Amino acid sequence: MPKFSMSVPAESDGCVPIAELGRRMARFRELLVDRQLDAAFIIDPRNVRYLSGFTGDDSAALITRHGQFLLTDFRYIDEAARTAKGWTVVIKPHGLMEKCGAVARRRRVKRLGIEPGAMRLTDLPPLRKACDGKVKLIRAPGLVGELRLQKSEWEVQRIEEAIRIQERCFRMFCKELKVGVSERDAAARLHYLLVTHGADDLAFDTLFQVDASSSLPHGRPTQRTLTTNSMVLCDWGVRKAGYHSDLTRMFFFGKIDSKLRELHRIVREAQLSVFAKLAPGVDLAEIDKAAHKVIDKAGYKENFGHSTGHGIGLHIHEQPLLSVRSKGRLGEGMVVTVEPGIYLPGVCGVRLEDDVLITKTGCRILSSLPASLRWDGSDD
Amino acid sequence: MPKFSMSVPAESDGCVPIAELGRRMARFRELLVDRQLDAAFIIDPRNVRYLSGFTGDDSAALITRHGQFLLTDFRYIDEAARTAKGWTVVIKPHGLMEKCGAVARRRRVKRLGIEPGAMRLTDLPPLRKACDGKVKLIRAPGLVGELRLQKSEWEVQRIEEAIRIQERCFRMFCKELKVGVSERDAAARLHYLLVTHGADDLAFDTLFQVDASSSLPHGRPTQRTLTTNSMVLCDWGVRKAGYHSDLTRMFFFGKIDSKLRELHRIVREAQLSVFAKLAPGVDLAEIDKAAHKVIDKAGYKENFGHSTGHGIGLHIHEQPLLSVRSKGRLGEGMVVTVEPGIYLPGVCGVRLEDDVLITKTGCRILSSLPASLRWDGSDD
Repeated sequence: MPKFSMSVPAESDGCVPIAELGRRMARFRELLVDRQLDAAFIIDPRNVRYLSGFTGDDSAALITRHGQFLLTDFRYIDEAARTAKGWTVVIKPHGLMEKCGAVARRRRVKRLGIEPGAMRLTDLPPLRKACDGKVKLIRAPGLVGELRLQKSEWEVQRIEEAIRIQERCFRMFCKELKVGVSERDAAARLHYLLVTHGADDLAFDTLFQVDASSSLPHGRPTQRTLTTNSMVLCDWGVRKAGYHSDLTRMFFFGKIDSKLRELHRIVREAQLSVFAKLAPGVDLAEIDKAAHKVIDKAGYKENFGHSTGHGIGLHIHEQPLLSVRSKGRLGEGMVVTVEPGIYLPGVCGVRLEDDVLITKTGCRILSSLPASLRWDGSDD
Repeated sequence: MPKFSMSVPAESDGCVPIAELGRRMARFRELLVDRQLDAAFIIDPRNVRYLSGFTGDDSAALITRHGQFLLTDFRYIDEAARTAKGWTVVIKPHGLMEKCGAVARRRRVKRLGIEPGAMRLTDLPPLRKACDGKVKLIRAPGLVGELRLQKSEWEVQRIEEAIRIQERCFRMFCKELKVGVSERDAAARLHYLLVTHGADDLAFDTLFQVDASSSLPHGRPTQRTLTTNSMVLCDWGVRKAGYHSDLTRMFFFGKIDSKLRELHRIVREAQLSVFAKLAPGVDLAEIDKAAHKVIDKAGYKENFGHSTGHGIGLHIHEQPLLSVRSKGRLGEGMVVTVEPGIYLPGVCGVRLEDDVLITKTGCRILSSLPASLRWDGSDD
């Protein structure tokens, strides 16, 4: 593959409606004013996509109070015209940093916000040089992240679309599974079903963990195979038009061990106790505590070592984090995973994960697969 | 998927032999001395893997003149013990930057090399704070990259293994292809074949471009389908034990258009002229010029807009770049792609790509698929 043509993953049409882009940009410009910035230089590809609708990579956005410039290269001329509606497309002859400096100076930007979590140390010298002392660089962490917290109706629809695909394929997949199939082959088959049934890509590498594999906090698919009484933890997701979904289900072949059934019941109870709490204004740390409280009380305090959930959107892991260490509160329009689990080292792990939208008064669970499935895909 | 358990892609055993790691570390310590550094802090995951053999992510390596520390977290205790032989594993309670500062101070490091192309602006303040004025941070670009240029025999074997898998699967894949299959479904099927026949993952998203799609400099698989007289450009690769392979082949259904046959001949001639030049000591820019010369002479100067090749190894695109803008020369043990192409906008693109090892006196082509194939996988 030629270096210049690093391919961008296949995407469905993915054009963001003009009205949607307009609303995002209006809110972003309010933030610029609040932070006393004349302009912002955005290089995180997800943030570039959020603001401009542009789906390519190796590109950047420069937004001034009155103008919006997409800095890209010759590969993306057509795509920029199609997706970044209302943007001035600047085909960069040199690097992004040089081009940003040149446009910022021409537009007489005095205070330029930059993304410190996305820029590398090697980016700064060429950017400073191109700014030639005329433009002051201001670190502006979370500038776009703040906006991305609250999903619009259009964004929620994209996430729901991803969930529908992953649920539909999962039912097909379960029906096909047979004793003797390895974790690796099963994960490969699920991948194939997803991308041939509407997914642009996986949201992340599927975890398909059989029996004791499920107790590993990070499971790579192995050659372990399904046996007559196997239990499976499957954590999978879909990317559709840039948006991610993320679910986890357990399922059982043959006889269901009574201990597993009990763990599953506790985890489900923890999940339900979280659903009952989710609403705008609720403290993020309190939500995490609610899940842990149920599991602690059941005697598995040491066996739930992660936080209860995370935001999903243009990134598979984004704000807000439902963690005891999180500051802040839930807000309407946030979309989060709720995924308590119990892990018994070397024995098994049980986790359930659903995707949930925070509504005006509470929450709406976006996923619809039953919490427990028989191996053949029927409800338990 | 819980945030803490971002899964690492499936990998074959992938343990680097101890002797191999020892040689790498001895060479790396020579570089430390040359650059007057007491230690280096490595965070690029591929560089961490190269030096330590460790296959996880979210980790870092701190190498002093006499010690080697793998900074990781609780998820990777077992994996670090298995892969990073001879390393002191430091389970970080806080961030990597804090841990690095603490170890560096304890080891009385005065001059610590850092990777400016891998570190973000947000990494620097916590690292500086943890160093507490006792450790000077020295930007050391390309410290590990320099070593990775020259592949060992063991590394070449890993790349060859990846190539064998991708070639074997490609023959199976071609035999299965039928008129009516879409680019997306074909790419999904090839993915499935590769990961169920020994690949740890794809080296990159497959380009499977039918007819006019092939003229796009970056091709995402679309719903375009194979027809009776279609031509396909397929650019695909495999990752095996961390190492990447990368090939491009053209193939034809039914009748082969005489114009396409002519373009194919020219591109092949360009490739052969490069193979004839490859040897230690040859200027990188001269190699690129050799390929362009053939294509320019045939009248397609404007239709070959990329450089002739790039290094492959732990990264799909690494040094050396076979570009007219490259400084430097080829050396024994480098592995590069050779991939000239001709692109006629809206009509077609023709590219051939092979992977080549630079030997003591010339080169050895590692890939073995014939330059041209009939659609059924037989040689043309």
